[in-house]
Amino acid sequence: MAGSSLGTIFKITTWGESHGKGVGVVIDGCPAGLPLCETDIQKFLDRRKPGQSRFSTPRKESDTVEILSGIFEGKTTGTPISLMVRNENQRSKDYSEIASYYRPGHADYTFDAKYGFRDYRGGGRSSGRETIGRVAAGAVASKILEEMGISILTYTRSIGPVTISDERFDPDEICANPLYMPDAAAASKAQDYLNHCIQDQDSSGGVIECVITGMPAGIGETVFDKLDAGLAKAIFSIGAVKGFEIGSGFAAANKKGSENNDAFTTDSDGKITKKTNHAGGILGGMSDGDAIIFRAAVKPTPSIAQTQQTIRKDGTPIDINIAGRHDPVIVPRAVVVVESMAALTLVDLLFLNLSSRMDYLTKIYADSEP
Amino acid sequence: MAGSSLGTIFKITTWGESHGKGVGVVIDGCPAGLPLCETDIQKFLDRRKPGQSRFSTPRKESDTVEILSGIFEGKTTGTPISLMVRNENQRSKDYSEIASYYRPGHADYTFDAKYGFRDYRGGGRSSGRETIGRVAAGAVASKILEEMGISILTYTRSIGPVTISDERFDPDEICANPLYMPDAAAASKAQDYLNHCIQDQDSSGGVIECVITGMPAGIGETVFDKLDAGLAKAIFSIGAVKGFEIGSGFAAANKKGSENNDAFTTDSDGKITKKTNHAGGILGGMSDGDAIIFRAAVKPTPSIAQTQQTIRKDGTPIDINIAGRHDPVIVPRAVVVVESMAALTLVDLLFLNLSSRMDYLTKIYADSEP
Amino acid sequence: MAGSSLGTIFKITTWGESHGKGVGVVIDGCPAGLPLCETDIQKFLDRRKPGQSRFSTPRKESDTVEILSGIFEGKTTGTPISLMVRNENQRSKDYSEIASYYRPGHADYTFDAKYGFRDYRGGGRSSGRETIGRVAAGAVASKILEEMGISILTYTRSIGPVTISDERFDPDEICANPLYMPDAAAASKAQDYLNHCIQDQDSSGGVIECVITGMPAGIGETVFDKLDAGLAKAIFSIGAVKGFEIGSGFAAANKKGSENNDAFTTDSDGKITKKTNHAGGILGGMSDGDAIIFRAAVKPTPSIAQTQQTIRKDGTPIDINIAGRHDPVIVPRAVVVVESMAALTLVDLLFLNLSSRMDYLTKIYADSEP
Amino acid sequence: MAGSSLGTIFKITTWGESHGKGVGVVIDGCPAGLPLCETDIQKFLDRRKPGQSRFSTPRKESDTVEILSGIFEGKTTGTPISLMVRNENQRSKDYSEIASYYRPGHADYTFDAKYGFRDYRGGGRSSGRETIGRVAAGAVASKILEEMGISILTYTRSIGPVTISDERFDPDEICANPLYMPDAAAASKAQDYLNHCIQDQDSSGGVIECVITGMPAGIGETVFDKLDAGLAKAIFSIGAVKGFEIGSGFAAANKKGSENNDAFTTDSDGKITKKTNHAGGILGGMSDGDAIIFRAAVKPTPSIAQTQQTIRKDGTPIDINIAGRHDPVIVPRAVVVVESMAALTLVDLLFLNLSSRMDYLTKIYADSEP
Repeated sequence: MAGSSLGTIFKITTWGESHGKGVGVVIDGCPAGLPLCETDIQKFLDRRKPGQSRFSTPRKESDTVEILSGIFEGKTTGTPISLMVRNENQRSKDYSEIASYYRPGHADYTFDAKYGFRDYRGGGRSSGRETIGRVAAGAVASKILEEMGISILTYTRSIGPVTISDERFDPDEICANPLYMPDAAAASKAQDYLNHCIQDQDSSGGVIECVITGMPAGIGETVFDKLDAGLAKAIFSIGAVKGFEIGSGFAAANKKGSENNDAFTTDSDGKITKKTNHAGGILGGMSDGDAIIFRAAVKPTPSIAQTQQTIRKDGTPIDINIAGRHDPVIVPRAVVVVESMAALTLVDLLFLNLSSRMDYLTKIYADSEP
Repeated sequence: MAGSSLGTIFKITTWGESHGKGVGVVIDGCPAGLPLCETDIQKFLDRRKPGQSRFSTPRKESDTVEILSGIFEGKTTGTPISLMVRNENQRSKDYSEIASYYRPGHADYTFDAKYGFRDYRGGGRSSGRETIGRVAAGAVASKILEEMGISILTYTRSIGPVTISDERFDPDEICANPLYMPDAAAASKAQDYLNHCIQDQDSSGGVIECVITGMPAGIGETVFDKLDAGLAKAIFSIGAVKGFEIGSGFAAANKKGSENNDAFTTDSDGKITKKTNHAGGILGGMSDGDAIIFRAAVKPTPSIAQTQQTIRKDGTPIDINIAGRHDPVIVPRAVVVVESMAALTLVDLLFLNLSSRMDYLTKIYADSEP
Repeated sequence: MAGSSLGTIFKITTWGESHGKGVGVVIDGCPAGLPLCETDIQKFLDRRKPGQSRFSTPRKESDTVEILSGIFEGKTTGTPISLMVRNENQRSKDYSEIASYYRPGHADYTFDAKYGFRDYRGGGRSSGRETIGRVAAGAVASKILEEMGISILTYTRSIGPVTISDERFDPDEICANPLYMPDAAAASKAQDYLNHCIQDQDSSGGVIECVITGMPAGIGETVFDKLDAGLAKAIFSIGAVKGFEIGSGFAAANKKGSENNDAFTTDSDGKITKKTNHAGGILGGMSDGDAIIFRAAVKPTPSIAQTQQTIRKDGTPIDINIAGRHDPVIVPRAVVVVESMAALTLVDLLFLNLSSRMDYLTKIYADSEP
Repeated sequence: MAGSSLGTIFKITTWGESHGKGVGVVIDGCPAGLPLCETDIQKFLDRRKPGQSRFSTPRKESDTVEILSGIFEGKTTGTPISLMVRNENQRSKDYSEIASYYRPGHADYTFDAKYGFRDYRGGGRSSGRETIGRVAAGAVASKILEEMGISILTYTRSIGPVTISDERFDPDEICANPLYMPDAAAASKAQDYLNHCIQDQDSSGGVIECVITGMPAGIGETVFDKLDAGLAKAIFSIGAVKGFEIGSGFAAANKKGSENNDAFTTDSDGKITKKTNHAGGILGGMSDGDAIIFRAAVKPTPSIAQTQQTIRKDGTPIDINIAGRHDPVIVPRAVVVVESMAALTLVDLLFLNLSSRMDYLTKIYADSEP
């Protein structure tokens, strides 16, 4: 099993390599009756498109999505939605060199170890282009969430040593700077930092944060398919992610119970809520109705222009210089990938929860005539 | 779907509540021919048994496992292995009080939100006793790994502010102190710290670390079922975990590519390896043959003796005092749970990888006569 | 994967061997709020219990079910329901003989071929006792269907050459004779036929028929998880089944379209229905609101008292006589197994269908407060 | 879940509607190193292509497959194989009429019942064109089987009342007549019969038979994922199938154990085999090394030119005449679909079996270096 599918009910399967004919995704399990058009999806894809600032690779790809199935008269039909983006940048440059050695921080060696050989053109299946399918599917999941009043806000929390300030937090700023930071001052500092990285032929890591509001309480299954476990898997399946935390996260390890527990209370409408949210909106693996907050640590781009030591396939040492201009930081383009993976996870768990109670069944099937 | 199953090929399903008749697990997909007896499993269960030091709840349970199926003449038969531990501590104490309000940091409210009501006796299904099934299954998975030369070392990395020192790291020390710390000095300090927590009617969080050696390279699927994604889900499915990281983890976010990349090299046997291991043994979601290293952040025990504010089901405020003596820290008893979840994940991915290459197929089926 | 689980949302996992400690099942995904007690399940188990007539093996087993988890205050909690039946008939008779050869029509050889060895006591996992778990789970599924107004009627259609007559069809007769035939005259003839089989140290096959009424239209997924495909798999997973057909079934192969098509019409309430039901209640893999009708062909019991030729494990020929009294026909005791497998399939597809439409989502989540 | 995926390890997902942009399939879990090109797949697709004789619909489609991913330098890479066939026949004819009523024997009504509306153009997702994805994937599965020495022979057994004769059985004849019958005389008679059906504006059903040779013994899981259960599901998921049987099938119901049991013996090479094969090559859900034989009953094409009675969506009666020339019999074009579904099932179970024994594990991982 190549593990290219995610989800139990809202299930996606991505396909495609960096320098093959294209990349795509099949979404199986989207309910019928959701209004959907290519623009809905293109908006998401444009957020991860390369070449939009000097902090992203200038590879020229329009990344235009084509809906191949599953839509009729502007609405989903309940049948699989097949989405495809043709690769435009398939020039047959000479990859014989890259084929012969193992780039540090990349999956070249592990692909060879697993399969005996690999499609070495542009990273093949381990290329960031694989995330196009995720984002296209994430756009559909996000539309479903939107119809249910659930919103996801995702942004860059830090780049290298530069972290956003909670005081200056401004959601409108996220799309106003090329780094997707909700803090103009931090964004400016981070750009300076990245310019230094570029000058040094180096790259930077960073942290992405995601806040989900409007989730009903009780979503997530109670043992292995916990909401936080599902998010952890989904986010960790993104190539460069090395850490994941929810709510107070790693900081909780150095806290006392009296500090970390969130007291229950009611809001002005009498709705049950919590006085604080160290839990990050999840208790016992289920949403508690509060904002869900998580963070993902993203490693620095492994493709750097500096000379690096490595070995050839036969084990002989070699000094390499990775050609071409690469993203000096993965974080900004990964923001929409994180958001997409979160949306996919939430939708699947919302659907799984539909059979959690006998009275839901009777509510649906009491009057199920067409 | 209540989500009580984990794994695609080596699949486990746990069942049972804190104060029901018992807890257990069914393991489906264990290969035939593995020598297995109750002692193999009991050894693991004894590592999480309560009442073994003053830092764990004194609930009296022998937690004796019974193998109900799947073993014949001392070996697994390939059919499901059903394991059960009877609950001994089912005294019908009065739970009517606890049934009426929502404990901070617990799943009381979310269970009610999901299912409309809950088995409130001792936390029901969200009790730590659910992990008995995981650990019993983990013991079986660990036996499989052992036969393949794969070892897992798991221990307490920190409790509250007390962290082990890499210089004093001594694996033999792990089982020599009740906190499972591989550093006697740190263990002693941590015990002092916990004694203060107990005095203050409070609890502490901590960090668990896990190191896996002997993994062949290339294990893990390349997109959603990455080895790190699988570990992230498995570890995050443990109740109190709030953070997970691999290799340099969150620290990678503040690193440059030139620092974080691991140069490939060969060892004295000519085997491909890396000069450093910031990757934590995983590249592109597959094992790279190096040690796999991950850490889990565990929140402080939510059950504390201090008076806490919360609400009743109807929203009216109430001050509560949680009776009984609870673990002042979850970490030491969770060490074997983390190890078990890691073992389960590795075995499933090792099995999935068996169909990754055509030549594996011919190797098995060339001479498949009984 | 030993394949002991069935279902995507309403998922069951059976375990246990004929002469192990017991047999059982874990049901994961049962909605919360279903009233359930051991009597509900025992009623089903009693329908497959041995020793109830001269046409079933006299093995003495009370087959008493124990609910180990998942029920609280008389209702399902939404967590796994673990059910166990202890084996009472574990006497250590000498099986060394049976271990050495391969019985015709049994799975002795294929178990050895697959796993290298087998638990040969009473057929091990391939024993009919494995179906106890299915029937126990089927009882729970049937309770869910009952609450939704869906009924299943299952009975013996034929035994050897004796087939029920449609004119004499009387559902009340089913439980009135030991063969579960809805036709007293046919039941009487079939008993004569079986008595002859017993005299001849031989056994008989037969056909089971199942009629499901009250299904809403549109249940079943449209491609691989069609309702008929799901039923086919579920029924064919019962050991002795060799054929399965829906509606006109094999007879459809010799019909013309003009004969086999069912004209749509409306009933007196204006509800859409069909003038005939050659389709057996399923069109395009989905229920059409009409009665679902299917039949399963069951082979004759392979354990017969006559001398049979076979071979030892080493290939040398041997004449064997299977000791003990075996069911001369599998059909009557398999009736409740077929009914259970049908119920399990229906419930899972009813649950999967809950996310088929956007308006179902809003119906559930518009007012999901606890 | 729309249920468009099949398989646990070798997993396929089909997509596409009759009159959408195209149809296709993603294969996830194909091992690396299988030589594969478009011709391998096209050969299979050409066997189901319309317009090849007067007994198939004259719809003009070249059905040319495009491999979009997963192949590098002529071999599979282990990553998903995406296959697409563009629909050419998308002319926007007026479907408003067909949209308004429910055709007998079709899924029009059940689609509306499930999803609230439907893509009514040419049957939408329930069109026979959906099987293009299955056949394309089946071609890949068949290549894997071929490399393992497993062959599948599939053919028309009967059309209406005309059945092949075992004496005249000639596998070379299968591709020599447009009905794929291995008996020239029967093929000639069946063509006469079909000409009469066409004249009468009617259609015919038939039976497809499939024989698999070369399977190693022990393939198939022992409880729910039995080999026969898997085949039953796979074959029953084909639109027009109404019956399925293995070996002696329904005839077994009228047999005695002494007739139906197959005595074990050894062949001239000392290999274990059976004197007869009433079991159809499967015992206890596992292959027994003998030929696997099954049959599928296919209903007559529901689209007939005769005037038929039905109703409009609002329930009012209407007499309809289905325009266009349709296949007078589905069987010949379904032969390759049945073969494909069988191949997909076998490959998945062969892969699942790889983890059935501890010694397989050591055989693979003892020397797993790249």
